[in-house]
Amino acid sequence: MTRQHEIATRIQDVLDRASLIRQMFEEGERLRRERGPDGVIDLSLGNPVVEPPQAFKDALLSVASDPTPGQHRYMPNPGLPEAREAVARRYARSTGLDVTPDHVVLTVGAAGGLNIVLKAILDPDDEVLIPVPYFVEYLFYVENHQGRVVLVPTTDRFDLNLEAIERSITPKTRAILVNSPNNPTGVVYPRSTLERLAEILTQASQRHGRPIYLLSDEPYRHIVVPGVEVPHIQTIYPQTVVATSHSKDLGLPGERIGQVILGLGIEDPSTFVSALSFSMRALGFVNAPALMQRILARIGDASIDTTLYHTNRTLLVESLRTAGLELIEPQ
Amino acid sequence: MTRQHEIATRIQDVLDRASLIRQMFEEGERLRRERGPDGVIDLSLGNPVVEPPQAFKDALLSVASDPTPGQHRYMPNPGLPEAREAVARRYARSTGLDVTPDHVVLTVGAAGGLNIVLKAILDPDDEVLIPVPYFVEYLFYVENHQGRVVLVPTTDRFDLNLEAIERSITPKTRAILVNSPNNPTGVVYPRSTLERLAEILTQASQRHGRPIYLLSDEPYRHIVVPGVEVPHIQTIYPQTVVATSHSKDLGLPGERIGQVILGLGIEDPSTFVSALSFSMRALGFVNAPALMQRILARIGDASIDTTLYHTNRTLLVESLRTAGLELIEPQ
Repeated sequence: MTRQHEIATRIQDVLDRASLIRQMFEEGERLRRERGPDGVIDLSLGNPVVEPPQAFKDALLSVASDPTPGQHRYMPNPGLPEAREAVARRYARSTGLDVTPDHVVLTVGAAGGLNIVLKAILDPDDEVLIPVPYFVEYLFYVENHQGRVVLVPTTDRFDLNLEAIERSITPKTRAILVNSPNNPTGVVYPRSTLERLAEILTQASQRHGRPIYLLSDEPYRHIVVPGVEVPHIQTIYPQTVVATSHSKDLGLPGERIGQVILGLGIEDPSTFVSALSFSMRALGFVNAPALMQRILARIGDASIDTTLYHTNRTLLVESLRTAGLELIEPQ
Repeated sequence: MTRQHEIATRIQDVLDRASLIRQMFEEGERLRRERGPDGVIDLSLGNPVVEPPQAFKDALLSVASDPTPGQHRYMPNPGLPEAREAVARRYARSTGLDVTPDHVVLTVGAAGGLNIVLKAILDPDDEVLIPVPYFVEYLFYVENHQGRVVLVPTTDRFDLNLEAIERSITPKTRAILVNSPNNPTGVVYPRSTLERLAEILTQASQRHGRPIYLLSDEPYRHIVVPGVEVPHIQTIYPQTVVATSHSKDLGLPGERIGQVILGLGIEDPSTFVSALSFSMRALGFVNAPALMQRILARIGDASIDTTLYHTNRTLLVESLRTAGLELIEPQ
């Protein structure tokens, strides 16, 4: 019995061209254990160096000392009512949309959120458009659920290329997955581009007789250069499903807490949430970690202090300019 | 555009024959909000009524008050080194096996653990044997990764039916998924049955040129009638992969913390762990919740007080007997 049959052939193929980002991160962790915390400067993955805000620490202590029984039990798959309520209230306030707890599902990070949405909407061979360059794991998220990835180019400013998107739409197109502020380019898609994208998607949805969703992965929404507007895409295209997390704005990537918010253009949110609940159970998430949900319900609008990120960005942009490089400034 | 195209056709089909267990649980939660906590007796899903042990509460408070920076950041996908170490040490001590941290992956519950193992080992159309009756979600776990479920009958005592298992093995058989103590029957598979199963699997693995894994889902291991032995299957069949959680023994189902432990018969655990890491990222888990991992690293052998469960079981068994029913006693 040969070792190479111990894992699936298709997974072996993936490992052979494995994530260099993760490999560098894991090598960095190893070196850090060997040489101490100051012996390694880790520029691999987006691990927040800024600590969670004081409001998070206070809420964690308050939940940890709460003697009420049942804090760690199962709950309905979409989440604790008070956490769904808190997320809906906050989102409604910042968008002006009439979003209710019935449009919200708490998830195991944005990655978990995107996976349950894709499982809920994709039939085999349905297509998902992804603008290039993109967060590499998106490819796997789509392939997990037998979807097909269709890569589309962006403009020379890394903005969405609307002509290329329009050309790429077929009767099998089910969604376009956008990430703004974008990882890796740092670009924020402007309102005007999104408005024209919404027209294209609305027309194509009508032509093909089923909705083409805009999946908006927004973990970097709160980490932008002061003054930059990050448009709320649901106010522009109501068939938008937002998947986001608190990995960046609260500095909690290890805790796996995120959320999915359904656009008001979804006519039957109750069935959509049932599909998400089923997907959460079937994929093995079951629900977002209870303790983090309780914290979200208590924490209000808290966010990390982004000063350090702005300082670093300015330093980097200026250094690259001084070095004679041309660049599109990350926003 | 019709509402019925808002979710995938195959998910709509599943919802039409949806989990009655979950529906009853969610209806119970709704009624409880309406009528108060004593107004509903919920016999739907296995939600622990016993609170987590004091050691858990102490560890949670200690982690919550720890001012060390970086507590909530990303980590290597298989988990924090100290959590893998603690799990390996505990498992090695209770089994006598030479299990190391390199055999351990922390997971988002047992459901998350089973999903990453199945993704790591299944090529399309590979078969997974499941003894009947079974935890219904197993079907979805296998189908998520394009595996095929092969149901096999059990004996009239709900023990494994070895002849039926042997007859069901084909060149496509990749695993048999066992759950002991069993949900729903309450039966613990005896050592003698497992020894004969190990012989069958070893011979079939050799015959077909790749390992047939025994996947052992063991969340109920610590909730047995005093005196009942739950054999450690890895000591009997070294190609066993254990997936388990702390949902029952620590009463933490809402927190989604579990683990996968590789049997020593796996010749290349490093590649197997890489396959599990990839599967964790691709499916969107990324890692088990950081905070629960830190607690596991501190908590030692703590477990809930199972007295209440034993009392309830005795009461139920005696009542059913008095009512004139014959039954196979849950162990």
